[in-house]
Amino acid sequence: MKERERGRMEERGAMVSNKQVVLRDYVSGFPTVEDMEVRRGEMKLEIPRGSKAVVVKNLYLSCDAYMRLLMNRTTTDLLTPYTPGSPISGFGVAKIVDSGSPKFKVGDLVWGTTGWEEYSLITNPEGLSKIEHTDVPLSYYIGILGIPGMTSYVGFYKVCSAKKGDTVFISAASGAIGQIVGQFAKLTGCYVVGCAGSKEKVDLLKSKFGFDDAFNYKEERELAAALKRYFPEGIDIYFDNVGGEMLDAVLVNMRAHGRITLCGMVSQYSSDSPVGVTNLMHAIYKRVRIEGFAIADHMNEYSKFLEFMLPHIREGKIVYIEDIAEGFENGPSALVRIFNGRNVGKQLVVLARE
Amino acid sequence: MKERERGRMEERGAMVSNKQVVLRDYVSGFPTVEDMEVRRGEMKLEIPRGSKAVVVKNLYLSCDAYMRLLMNRTTTDLLTPYTPGSPISGFGVAKIVDSGSPKFKVGDLVWGTTGWEEYSLITNPEGLSKIEHTDVPLSYYIGILGIPGMTSYVGFYKVCSAKKGDTVFISAASGAIGQIVGQFAKLTGCYVVGCAGSKEKVDLLKSKFGFDDAFNYKEERELAAALKRYFPEGIDIYFDNVGGEMLDAVLVNMRAHGRITLCGMVSQYSSDSPVGVTNLMHAIYKRVRIEGFAIADHMNEYSKFLEFMLPHIREGKIVYIEDIAEGFENGPSALVRIFNGRNVGKQLVVLARE
Repeated sequence: MKERERGRMEERGAMVSNKQVVLRDYVSGFPTVEDMEVRRGEMKLEIPRGSKAVVVKNLYLSCDAYMRLLMNRTTTDLLTPYTPGSPISGFGVAKIVDSGSPKFKVGDLVWGTTGWEEYSLITNPEGLSKIEHTDVPLSYYIGILGIPGMTSYVGFYKVCSAKKGDTVFISAASGAIGQIVGQFAKLTGCYVVGCAGSKEKVDLLKSKFGFDDAFNYKEERELAAALKRYFPEGIDIYFDNVGGEMLDAVLVNMRAHGRITLCGMVSQYSSDSPVGVTNLMHAIYKRVRIEGFAIADHMNEYSKFLEFMLPHIREGKIVYIEDIAEGFENGPSALVRIFNGRNVGKQLVVLARE
Repeated sequence: MKERERGRMEERGAMVSNKQVVLRDYVSGFPTVEDMEVRRGEMKLEIPRGSKAVVVKNLYLSCDAYMRLLMNRTTTDLLTPYTPGSPISGFGVAKIVDSGSPKFKVGDLVWGTTGWEEYSLITNPEGLSKIEHTDVPLSYYIGILGIPGMTSYVGFYKVCSAKKGDTVFISAASGAIGQIVGQFAKLTGCYVVGCAGSKEKVDLLKSKFGFDDAFNYKEERELAAALKRYFPEGIDIYFDNVGGEMLDAVLVNMRAHGRITLCGMVSQYSSDSPVGVTNLMHAIYKRVRIEGFAIADHMNEYSKFLEFMLPHIREGKIVYIEDIAEGFENGPSALVRIFNGRNVGKQLVVLARE
């Protein structure tokens, strides 16, 4: 009976209650749940007459490190800050409830940028992708089959020019991206070591994702010395998710003609005074290529990526660990978890399973 | 008569006096002339019997920034430190006085690594190159036709993937490498701005080398703001000869998909506490490729490079300014000049003109 009511409520044209996660103000330092509030509004499940918009019901919301940068006042080439007082946005999996777009019909499942709210009106749905394969968990489309997956794929194979025999180091290795990159490295025949911030995560890297070795960076007094222990001959590829001190320690441990992919710098996002990298001279000694990339530039390769990933997932050759928060009220705390490293695997929030 | 005596003295088998520049001890901070001494020794102008060595008379000695790194105790992939108490080494132009190498005969002119001394015994002459074209100044083979030229060529065209319309920034722009890169940029149809450390050099950049603009970095309080003035739309290519603060200021001014060539970091060579680079996050925002390179990896392109450069030099399409110290005794002070920026153009020492 309750299910049927919900079903009715989501019909096109219905007026529904709509909870939203709103940013109170720009954030300085580490974000806390107090920086956000859950607000209850109302919404009509109907697109403006004649528009090409869609209305979606949000099912899964992704918690990603870059979202911290949107809590700053600063606009960059890639990032437009959140607006205090308005709902935050991020990647999500959603279901079409009303559509003026020829691309989507009611009932379609999609993934892409959406609001942190139960229902969203998306005025420009061009950025949404229809989900065609539903034999894998839907949540994978904001993880291993979404931006983190694409980022791992492009960053490792293309930006790092990875090849068999390379020695690979990954920071934040059990996170949304690191765990995928590590498995790519093993598939490619590389030697791969990851670092993470707890014993549980380090164990996971070795037992679940097949890393050759792993260490807890919090237990190392000298990062450069720790790296030297795991890579006595040096590092060919560093997939950098954290920046700062770890990047500096890696630079002195690079091998000739090494590649460093700058994917993210989560260690720096909540800091007002970023750590200076002092060892860039080693990039000359070792002829290292350091490259920043933005996945938005590579989305034309998404279908090739999907074709590559789906069989690996179906055959269990690549696994994915998610840290799932249940229910809208747990959204802010789930997002905050990734900045203090409490999450184990890809952090996401489930609002509804369909 | 004096000339004839000298001529005789240099005959194979003669015992000659041989002045040398010797490093007293490892250097900390900026090098001074007191860190070196000119010592007089003796040498027999003859290779060991049956060896493949050569004995050369040194004509021109090159003063290069990397030599400061060899005054440190630290060995790196690329660099083996000088030995205190022994003569320092560097690139030079020389004449073969005796030869056991099938590659060289007495009287040949060569360039390559030699000692800072009047005569050198070079036990492994494989690294020397015979000078075939003598219609250009011989000293060019330690400048525009030697390592600085090759470094400019590979760094600009290959590492930076330079193309018409790119906006190019060059630090230490009037130095041995910068002046060549700037002229390559103009030949390629780029917009190019250089910085240097005096009014004289800035004027030279604009009047002699055809830079579109130039500034004295010592007169700028905010390097990032200065760069914004010259590159309101951002920088496509930064040819970095200095590292440190300037690199940090450039990072926030890069354009999407920009390239930074790490060629040298002279601002850091004499410092015990290198300046930390804090703006690497902008390499992600702007998808920047930062690449260190070592010219030793690219020497197979030398003849292609020579074929490209010689006509440009002969036709006056590329010019080269040298700062020439006369005589062996002025060697140490000439070398020190490049670390306090007193040189204008490529610094070298002439021992003999042939």
